[in-house]
Amino acid sequence: MAEPMFERAAFIGIGLIGSSLARLMKRDGLARHVVAVARNEKTRATALELGVVDEATADIAHAVRGADLVMVCTPIGAYADVAAAFGPHLAKGCVVSDVGSVKQAVLRDLGPHLPDGVHLVPGHPVAGTEHSGPESGFAELFEGRWCILTPPPGTDPAAVEKIAELWRRAGSNVEMMDAHHHDKVLAITSHLPHLIAYTIVGTATDVETALRQEVIKFSAGGFRDFTRIAASDPVMWRDIFLNNREAVLEMLQRFSEDLTALQRSIRWGEGEKLEDLFSRTRAIRRSIIDAKQA
Amino acid sequence: MAEPMFERAAFIGIGLIGSSLARLMKRDGLARHVVAVARNEKTRATALELGVVDEATADIAHAVRGADLVMVCTPIGAYADVAAAFGPHLAKGCVVSDVGSVKQAVLRDLGPHLPDGVHLVPGHPVAGTEHSGPESGFAELFEGRWCILTPPPGTDPAAVEKIAELWRRAGSNVEMMDAHHHDKVLAITSHLPHLIAYTIVGTATDVETALRQEVIKFSAGGFRDFTRIAASDPVMWRDIFLNNREAVLEMLQRFSEDLTALQRSIRWGEGEKLEDLFSRTRAIRRSIIDAKQA
Repeated sequence: MAEPMFERAAFIGIGLIGSSLARLMKRDGLARHVVAVARNEKTRATALELGVVDEATADIAHAVRGADLVMVCTPIGAYADVAAAFGPHLAKGCVVSDVGSVKQAVLRDLGPHLPDGVHLVPGHPVAGTEHSGPESGFAELFEGRWCILTPPPGTDPAAVEKIAELWRRAGSNVEMMDAHHHDKVLAITSHLPHLIAYTIVGTATDVETALRQEVIKFSAGGFRDFTRIAASDPVMWRDIFLNNREAVLEMLQRFSEDLTALQRSIRWGEGEKLEDLFSRTRAIRRSIIDAKQA
Repeated sequence: MAEPMFERAAFIGIGLIGSSLARLMKRDGLARHVVAVARNEKTRATALELGVVDEATADIAHAVRGADLVMVCTPIGAYADVAAAFGPHLAKGCVVSDVGSVKQAVLRDLGPHLPDGVHLVPGHPVAGTEHSGPESGFAELFEGRWCILTPPPGTDPAAVEKIAELWRRAGSNVEMMDAHHHDKVLAITSHLPHLIAYTIVGTATDVETALRQEVIKFSAGGFRDFTRIAASDPVMWRDIFLNNREAVLEMLQRFSEDLTALQRSIRWGEGEKLEDLFSRTRAIRRSIIDAKQA
């Protein structure tokens, strides 16, 4: 086993993403000691029992004391509170990172609470499943996926490289991006799709009880794929939408316009327009397969 | 091998669904002779080379002559034309069925062309993939899935039972339903989801070229799941929307209302409403897993 990259890695929150990264760091000896902070006693017990971490605690100050890596893995809405709690206890040279799906909010919510000499390197592994909790994590989750880092200008290059190397060890391809641009791209590729999936699952099941049973029974025709996406963690996604409001609303507006146009084509029987769009979207699928992201 | 259920089975169209059923019937000896009609020479050659059928022809009258089963597997928009072509050549006692995703249109388009003594048993196997063509079919496609039959009142019970038995042999669970009700249920579980997927893939890729590359690159965050659905056959889906117009537009209207409400919640920061919906949709996923349709 190689020399550990970190002496003490503190995970603030140990859900699907946190526990997957913690498992990997334990498996590959990337940190000498891995500690998780979780408010919920059952979560702490599960993380310990499964060997995801060496230590689990509710005491955030204790967890980060002496840590050279603090990885924030809570829903985004909790960032400001946890940073206020751990900020004063950070050691000089510590690298603070996160795994949140919105990146401008990280600078806003974590930044003000970090003392001088602590490095902030926000990150976003573009990976996940619809399951939550430490029992859902697995060390291979990040293999072949992208991890986007959005360090603000002037961030210590050594700190950035350390986080980049961590994700490369996890099997990910690392990409640097401006936080504003990240939030725009992800609004398209992730936030809008989730919003639409949540909506359609709501719409399709807001029907009389008998029909609802049939909707579930015959879901294999397309609906069930949306239910998988719409089973993602409710609090995490609430916070994503509230914290990437502008970019999401902008994309939602475009989507609504396109949907209205399609609705009109169906109403007026404009088959050619439908076929044109459907042929174009089929070609997009091929691009994704070619990019090995299918 | 058991006694064949049919002497001569004629497939009108031999794409994903037709070729999957034809493969199964050949594999299990369910028909003594399986013949496919395809306009495209390459399709006929592929179907023959892969051993999907015993015979492939462009001559629809020849194909159905002497057939005791005619299975229509073309896009729905072609039904009236193919029925006009094969209708006069059908033998008494022949059972005509289909695999289309819209069922009221079948009675409208096939019905008038069938001579007396021929039985019409419309069917819809709720199964599929995003691929098309005879090379994409496989005999196991229907295993554990539902097949919905919508015979009009007064249909010969023996003919209905024969088609039901065919699908049971394919591994499907058979359900009887009124055609109008079928079209309403499928508008929710299949047609609306496809329409939304087509729209979002169009919206997300109608952006400047540089951004479009990034959308493809970072598609793993949710978008790629929609691209799979939006890669389904363009002509087949054009015809589904044009032939189930009312039910699709009705569901689309409900969806738009729900989306507008959600948009408003994001704009005004109503976190509780978002979380409520997302928790509700997560529970739906569990129902689908419990119903073994996940």
